Amino acid sequence: MTTTAPLRTAPLRIAIAGLGTVGAGVIRLLATNAGIISARAGRRIEVVAVSARDRSKNRGVDISGFAWEDDMSALARRDDVDVVVELVGGSDGPALALSRAALSAGKALVTANKAMIAHHGLELAELAEANNVALKFEAAVAGGIPVIKGLREGTSANALTKVYGILNGTCNYILSTMERTGADFADVLAEAQARGFAEADPAFDIEGVDAAHKLAILSAIGFGTRVDFAGVRVCGITQVRAADIAQADALGFVIRLIGEADVEDTEDGPRLLQRVRPCLVARGHPLSAVDGPTNAVVAEGNFSGRLLFQGAGAGDGPTASAVAADLIDIARDEVGAPFSIPVAQLAALPPAEPGHRTERTYIRFMVKDRPGVLAEITAAMRDGNVSIESLIQQGRGNAAGEVMVAMVTHEGQEANVSAALTLLEGSESLTGEPLVLPILPL
Amino acid sequence: MTTTAPLRTAPLRIAIAGLGTVGAGVIRLLATNAGIISARAGRRIEVVAVSARDRSKNRGVDISGFAWEDDMSALARRDDVDVVVELVGGSDGPALALSRAALSAGKALVTANKAMIAHHGLELAELAEANNVALKFEAAVAGGIPVIKGLREGTSANALTKVYGILNGTCNYILSTMERTGADFADVLAEAQARGFAEADPAFDIEGVDAAHKLAILSAIGFGTRVDFAGVRVCGITQVRAADIAQADALGFVIRLIGEADVEDTEDGPRLLQRVRPCLVARGHPLSAVDGPTNAVVAEGNFSGRLLFQGAGAGDGPTASAVAADLIDIARDEVGAPFSIPVAQLAALPPAEPGHRTERTYIRFMVKDRPGVLAEITAAMRDGNVSIESLIQQGRGNAAGEVMVAMVTHEGQEANVSAALTLLEGSESLTGEPLVLPILPL
Repeated sequence: MTTTAPLRTAPLRIAIAGLGTVGAGVIRLLATNAGIISARAGRRIEVVAVSARDRSKNRGVDISGFAWEDDMSALARRDDVDVVVELVGGSDGPALALSRAALSAGKALVTANKAMIAHHGLELAELAEANNVALKFEAAVAGGIPVIKGLREGTSANALTKVYGILNGTCNYILSTMERTGADFADVLAEAQARGFAEADPAFDIEGVDAAHKLAILSAIGFGTRVDFAGVRVCGITQVRAADIAQADALGFVIRLIGEADVEDTEDGPRLLQRVRPCLVARGHPLSAVDGPTNAVVAEGNFSGRLLFQGAGAGDGPTASAVAADLIDIARDEVGAPFSIPVAQLAALPPAEPGHRTERTYIRFMVKDRPGVLAEITAAMRDGNVSIESLIQQGRGNAAGEVMVAMVTHEGQEANVSAALTLLEGSESLTGEPLVLPILPL
Repeated sequence: MTTTAPLRTAPLRIAIAGLGTVGAGVIRLLATNAGIISARAGRRIEVVAVSARDRSKNRGVDISGFAWEDDMSALARRDDVDVVVELVGGSDGPALALSRAALSAGKALVTANKAMIAHHGLELAELAEANNVALKFEAAVAGGIPVIKGLREGTSANALTKVYGILNGTCNYILSTMERTGADFADVLAEAQARGFAEADPAFDIEGVDAAHKLAILSAIGFGTRVDFAGVRVCGITQVRAADIAQADALGFVIRLIGEADVEDTEDGPRLLQRVRPCLVARGHPLSAVDGPTNAVVAEGNFSGRLLFQGAGAGDGPTASAVAADLIDIARDEVGAPFSIPVAQLAALPPAEPGHRTERTYIRFMVKDRPGVLAEITAAMRDGNVSIESLIQQGRGNAAGEVMVAMVTHEGQEANVSAALTLLEGSESLTGEPLVLPILPL
């Protein structure tokens, strides 16, 4: 029997804007795996043109066979280009201008730009839908893990009850290194920067903004809602101390930065809860074993049950793998709605107010080493209606004369913890803001 | 802006053959999640006709609105059906006849039938390609985990170096329960049967055949090779004793049934290694934390690095989730080659001979409790050129007067272990066949 499946000779012609490590990685991947890719895509994928800041820079890949454009927006105007691959970065500016121009010109767009998709993804998806071209951004979330595809297509038959995971490799590297070495945040951050696991300006990562970008994208696809980056409640990892990690360890937990989203039915209709915050994760939970710059996403569907997708969250190879997978999908003519359902049908849900939700919580205070402090704290907990499951006071003060008091609460309303901590605001016994870390349910 | 993406009003019309727990699950899912599915699929997915053995049986779902066919092959002849969903089971017989008839009639086929795809997948894929219709079988491997999609599309840009994982929920349930309770194989199997985690005839599961079916399918997609079920080397879990699990535990390992495949370049060209066997898995390995009837698949790509897909390996909900995801793909007109590349281009690789490969190995002997036994065993190891890393002899014999001797070897050639054990064949010191379990590399 001979196959009559359509075989095409016309290659898919791409232009790449941005030749940093990821851009060079894509060029290297397309060359290294050219044979496999042609077989799977049904046609060759061919780099036609590139653009970057510095033409002469040595990137370890040969770009002499590609047309060069000094002005990257010219890539969107080339008649010999089917797909523009945007690897410039930045939520606005040249990346956004190029993306708009490419889609408007009827070219497909592949991007690894989480910030741009989190801020302008809906506009770009509408442009893509209007021009009937693909907009794909697998590489924007969780590096090489096919989690956009996993949610958009793998769990497509499910109403998801929850999506959550470890979405930032830098934070996970820092937290798991603190755990392994006992070192404090600032030291591990400096080491991570030296080893290339953290940016020179690490704020986007350690403040949780990068994870929030990714979460906003996952929520939209998972729940069929409009991307709402502004609605993500974000808390980073800068307040987590080595002593918190040691304390969590003694209680059977690790600390991970978790992004989580769900849709809550309220009397006023459904609301979308999205938040990024460090959590205590019990050792039995699959996310507790995720170490180093690894990412992992859990999706819980009403029929599929709990699914876990795990892998490298960044790096040129994994990111290039995701970019090229998108290109193969496009070569295969898979041009569906970028957010799984057309933008016009995505629900605009107001952000949920989580105060009435219940959880167990780890609360850590740094306090002055003097009589009456414990009584003051526990009285506030009582008055806030927070039930304490266990409480540990460190035996001796640190160099600053501070003592650490850490407690785990019974399951109770989040608002109660906030109320109790409000009662302690301005207390002279406390030497700083208390740290509140929820305990992720198993 | 209004979308001009094609909106279709014609529903995708499906017929379901087989109304066991999975078939009923699919009907329940399509009804429960109808709104979401229509939005994501771009059109309604509508059950038109069904067929099963007993029309009057109560399945907990209302089938009165569907046409009934006593003869399931009639489903393939109905003009009002676009897709036939085959949930009958069995590698040949009615399931295969229906599948051939459906594809030949130009209807898409969705199946959960791993045995049929492992044995006849290539023939069916050729039929699908010749008729330009979809053949999809996400539910055939690892239940609700989108791992067919993960390999076919998620890692499509990679040359995979290795695919391996926990592919049989029954075995994993038995092994992890033995681990937790200390009970022996036969007792746990009986309990698993009582609780519905094992079939009345468990041979397919515990002998590793079911895992081998799934592995053969994953290899084909992952490596672009022809499905070769006969080439899978299979060893089940029936020889694993509670004492092995305890011994592995003391050494920092758990025991899991692992299916693994890779392509080896030899002087005579590439060869495909596929095997299913119980392995020792170090506690730090992500597969070591996979408990109960969960499945997990690791794919290692030359750019993506290691990816892990994990979730429920069976059950009506997860399996229905995978079937319905295939239906949504078909509704979205995603009709690609079933094995990622057209059948005609799949490579026919001979099976690899792994004897020259190196690994660390756990070897357990049951021996008579008498002098000289250890000398005999260690001499055989020496003569086979097997280097022993650690050796433990249990202090006291069991009720049968047997003593357990367990060792872990240094990394060495597999053939050496075989040679050493050949030297011990017929030895009167041994009371049974030694158990050889490889140690999965981290």
